[in-house]
Amino acid sequence: MIQVPQGFRLAAANADFRGKKLKRNDLCLVLSDVPANAAGVFTTNLFKAAPVLISQEHLASGAPMRGVLINSGQANACTGDKGLEDCRASLDMVARALCGQGTDIGAETLLPASTGVIGAHMDMEKWRAAMPALTGSLGSIDLEGLARAMMTTDAFPKMAGAVLELENGCVRLAGVAKGAGMICPNMATMLALVMCDAAVPAGMWRAMFRRAADATFNRVSVDGDTSTNDSLFGLANGASGVSVRDGDLPRLEKALTDVLGQLAYMLVKDGEGATKVMHIHVSGAKNDAEAEKVARAVGHSQLVKTAMFGRDPNWGRIVAAAGRSGADFDPMELKVTLCGVELFSGGRPSDLDFDALLEKPLENVDIPLEISLGSGTGKARLLASDLSTGYVTLNSDYRS
Amino acid sequence: MIQVPQGFRLAAANADFRGKKLKRNDLCLVLSDVPANAAGVFTTNLFKAAPVLISQEHLASGAPMRGVLINSGQANACTGDKGLEDCRASLDMVARALCGQGTDIGAETLLPASTGVIGAHMDMEKWRAAMPALTGSLGSIDLEGLARAMMTTDAFPKMAGAVLELENGCVRLAGVAKGAGMICPNMATMLALVMCDAAVPAGMWRAMFRRAADATFNRVSVDGDTSTNDSLFGLANGASGVSVRDGDLPRLEKALTDVLGQLAYMLVKDGEGATKVMHIHVSGAKNDAEAEKVARAVGHSQLVKTAMFGRDPNWGRIVAAAGRSGADFDPMELKVTLCGVELFSGGRPSDLDFDALLEKPLENVDIPLEISLGSGTGKARLLASDLSTGYVTLNSDYRS
Repeated sequence: MIQVPQGFRLAAANADFRGKKLKRNDLCLVLSDVPANAAGVFTTNLFKAAPVLISQEHLASGAPMRGVLINSGQANACTGDKGLEDCRASLDMVARALCGQGTDIGAETLLPASTGVIGAHMDMEKWRAAMPALTGSLGSIDLEGLARAMMTTDAFPKMAGAVLELENGCVRLAGVAKGAGMICPNMATMLALVMCDAAVPAGMWRAMFRRAADATFNRVSVDGDTSTNDSLFGLANGASGVSVRDGDLPRLEKALTDVLGQLAYMLVKDGEGATKVMHIHVSGAKNDAEAEKVARAVGHSQLVKTAMFGRDPNWGRIVAAAGRSGADFDPMELKVTLCGVELFSGGRPSDLDFDALLEKPLENVDIPLEISLGSGTGKARLLASDLSTGYVTLNSDYRS
Repeated sequence: MIQVPQGFRLAAANADFRGKKLKRNDLCLVLSDVPANAAGVFTTNLFKAAPVLISQEHLASGAPMRGVLINSGQANACTGDKGLEDCRASLDMVARALCGQGTDIGAETLLPASTGVIGAHMDMEKWRAAMPALTGSLGSIDLEGLARAMMTTDAFPKMAGAVLELENGCVRLAGVAKGAGMICPNMATMLALVMCDAAVPAGMWRAMFRRAADATFNRVSVDGDTSTNDSLFGLANGASGVSVRDGDLPRLEKALTDVLGQLAYMLVKDGEGATKVMHIHVSGAKNDAEAEKVARAVGHSQLVKTAMFGRDPNWGRIVAAAGRSGADFDPMELKVTLCGVELFSGGRPSDLDFDALLEKPLENVDIPLEISLGSGTGKARLLASDLSTGYVTLNSDYRS
C-alpha cells in the first residue's frame, strides 16, 4: 500500500454526477495542511474545459495552492461563461464547507479538474448536496480511494509512489491517475496528480515537474486524440520538514519522473481495448525531434497497431510508417528490432523465420520495438497501445 | 461502359504471382500506339519500391512514354539492387515480346508499378512465362479487365471516364485505380492510371495532372498510412487528333480532376472495412494550409472515425480533433454541421435533438461534414473512411 505523503489529507464522496445512482464515489479532494508549491500541465487543445482555464488562472498567480478538486461524470467542457461560473461556484462551496470545519482556505487556492460528459452544464444541486459527505470524509480516504473516485471506464485504479532517502531525511511521493476511459459523449480524458512532502523551491518544482511530464505523459499514445480536460498536477508541501538540497534535486526529479512514468504506463496498458503496450525506442536520428517524429508515426499508425493486436511481426508496416514520418534518414541505414529479433536492415528484411521466433514473445503484453536510423544521435521513447476490435466496439457503441 | 481513349490498347494476363493458381489476371499493360506525354505522382515515403524509383527515373528524362506495366501480388519493395534489376528485366521482357509482334518500343518508355507482398524478390520465371499471354491479349482487354488485373483485395473494380467536346473535336479520358486493399504482409497500395487521347503540350499536361492529383488523391484518408508503392500515372497521346487550345485547358483540367476525383472517392468507399465516406469540408481558416490541418485531424481521428461507424453524431470528438489540429482559430467561432444539422457553434453544442434528427441521415454511406472556423477564407476538402471492427479484423488477422 502506497503511503500518502505527510501533510496531505484526502476526501471523496458520491455526488451521483452520472445520475445513475451508482455506488461509487465521483468527487474527490486533495487538501494540503499547509500551502504547497504547485505545478500543472494541461491539454494543448484549443477547446479547454472551464476547470482547465481556471486551474491555469490560479497557477498563473505563482502563489502556493492548498488543494486539487476533481469530479468525474461531468466534464464542464464547451459550457461557455456559465461553465466558468459553475466551476468557481464549486470551489467556493468547498472552501466554505472546509471553513465550517475550521479549515480556512481561499477558493483561489484550489485547482479544479473534471472528466465526463461534455457540453452539458454541471448540476450544482448535486455539488451542494455532496459537500457534507466530501468534507466529512477528509483524512479517511486512502490513495486507492482517491484513484477510484477519479475513474470513468478505467479497468483498474492507477497509483504509484516513491520513498526517497535524502541527506536531510526521508521524503515521499504519491500519485494517482485516470486513463483514457470513455464516457458519453465520449472524450478520452487523462487526469493525474502527484503529491510530494519535500520542501522544494517553487521554481525548481515547476521546472522539474514539466520536464518529468514531458518525459512520461507526453510520451504515450493511445489514439492520438487529446481531450478538452487533460490535466496533470503536482503539489510539493514541504510537510516532511526535509529541505531538498541542490545536490538532491536530480534524485528527486528522477523519483518524480519514475512515479509519472509508472502512471503513464498504466494509462497505456488500460487504454481502451488495449491488449499490448509497445515500448518504442528510436535512436540514431539527426536530433531528438526527428526521432520523435518516427516514434509518433509508428506508435500512431493504425496498421502497426492492428498488426500488434494480431501478433504479427509486420516489419513492412513499421518501416513504411518510419518512412512517411517526415524524419530525414537514409533508408539503407534503418534497423528494426522487435522483441530482440532484428527484422530489417540494409534496406531488406532479415533472413530469419520471424513467425517462429516471435510467436511466443508477441503473446506478451509488453512489446519492445527498437528503431535505429543510423543518421545521428537523436533519440526518443514512446509507449503506444495496440488497436483492437475492442477499441472500435467501445468507441462506436456508446449508445448501447 | 467506359470507352478506352483512342490509340490505347490494353493487355492482361494471369502470371500467378501469388502462387495460388487463382483464376484471375495479375499482370496488365497499357500501350499507347504513339508516344504519349506522361505524368506521374508517387509515394513520398522514404522507402520507395523499385518500380517507383524506375518510373521516376524514366519520367525524369521528360521524354514521351509508350505505356504502363502493372503487376499485383509482388510489390518489389525493400528488395535492394536486385529489385531494381528485376524491374528493369521485366520491362525488357515486355519490350522484346512486343518487338516480336512488330511493335518496337524501348524499355525506357515503359512505366512500371507493382503491388503486393513486400520484401520478397519477384519470381522472374513467372514473368517470362506470362509474356505470350500478356502481349497476345493486347487490344482484347477492356477498361474493367484492366481495373480487375490491378486489384488485390478491392471489393470492386474502379473505373471512371469522361468525354469532352472541345472546339476542335471530341477527346476522351478514362482511368482505373486499385485501392487500399491489403495483402500479406500487408501494405495499402494505391495505384491509378488515366489515359487521355487529347494532344496537350507535355508541360501543360504534367502541371494539370499534378494539380488534379493534389485536389483528389491527396485529399483522401483511409488510415493515414502511405505505402512504398503508391503511384499515379497520366498519359496523353494525342491520338484523337484534337489539339487542346489554351482556352480549352481549364475544361480539360476539370474533366481530369473529375475522373481522378471519382476514382479517389471509390478508393475511400472501398477502404478496408469502410462503411461510410465522410465528405469533410473545412472553410473559414486563416489559409488553405490551416484548413487542411483541421480536415486531416478530423478525418484521421480514430475517435471521429469510430463514431461515424457507430452512427453517432458525436460533436465533441469533431470539435476536439479540430482543437488539437494545430490550426489557429477562435474556438468561439467554430461551427460544425453534420448532414445539414448544426451541431456546434458559439463554443456550445446546439439545442437540437441530434439523435432524432440524425438517426436516418447517418445510415447513409455518404456523410457530409462542414466545419467553419470563422477566421478567414482558407478552405480544404477531404474524403475519409470510417473505422470499423472490420478494418481491425482485416488488418490483424492476416494469417488466418
